[in-house]
Amino acid sequence: MSAEKAPAESMVFIGKKPVMNYVVACLTSFNSGAKKVVIKARGRAISRAVDTAELLRRSFARDIEIEKIEIGTEEITRSEEQQKSNVSTIEITLVKK
Amino acid sequence: MSAEKAPAESMVFIGKKPVMNYVVACLTSFNSGAKKVVIKARGRAISRAVDTAELLRRSFARDIEIEKIEIGTEEITRSEEQQKSNVSTIEITLVKK
Repeated sequence: MSAEKAPAESMVFIGKKPVMNYVVACLTSFNSGAKKVVIKARGRAISRAVDTAELLRRSFARDIEIEKIEIGTEEITRSEEQQKSNVSTIEITLVKK
Repeated sequence: MSAEKAPAESMVFIGKKPVMNYVVACLTSFNSGAKKVVIKARGRAISRAVDTAELLRRSFARDIEIEKIEIGTEEITRSEEQQKSNVSTIEITLVKK
C-alpha cells in the first residue's frame, strides 16, 4: 500500500475502434481505482484520442479533468519499403478530482 | 511599439492541405515578427495540427517550442440534417525562444 504506484495509473491506447470503446475503457480504469489514466495515440488516431478525452470529461464523468497534454514524434519503419518515417503522437493525462 | 500586441501573436487554421503548407504559414508568421503562433484545428484535422507543430519544432526551427496545448469541444449544426453534433478542437500555442 505504501509505495505501490502501479494500480493508481493506467494507460489506454487509442486504435481504430469506435470512440465509445475507449471511453468505456477509461471509465473502467477509473472505477477500478485508478487516479490517473493516460490516453495514448499516434497518427490519425490522435483526433480520436481528443474525442475520447472530451467525451469523457464533458458527458460521462464531470469529476475527471485533463492534467497534461504532450505531443511527440516516433520513428517507425514500414516493412514494405524498409523506409523510416515519422509519426506524431499524443498523450493526454486524465485525473480524477 | 509600446502596448501594441496585435502583430506579436498570429493564428494558423489547419484544414485539408498538405502539412507543409501550414509549416510554411507558421514560419512566415514567426519570420515577420510574431512571438507566438497559435495552431487551431478541429475534427480530423487535429492530427495534422500535431504533425505541423512537431515538424516545425523538430525539423525547421529548433528555437520554437510548445507553450501550451488545449483541447475543447465545439457544437456544429450540419445543414443537411439540421442536427447538432459535437466536434473536438485543439489549440497548440508555439513560442519563439
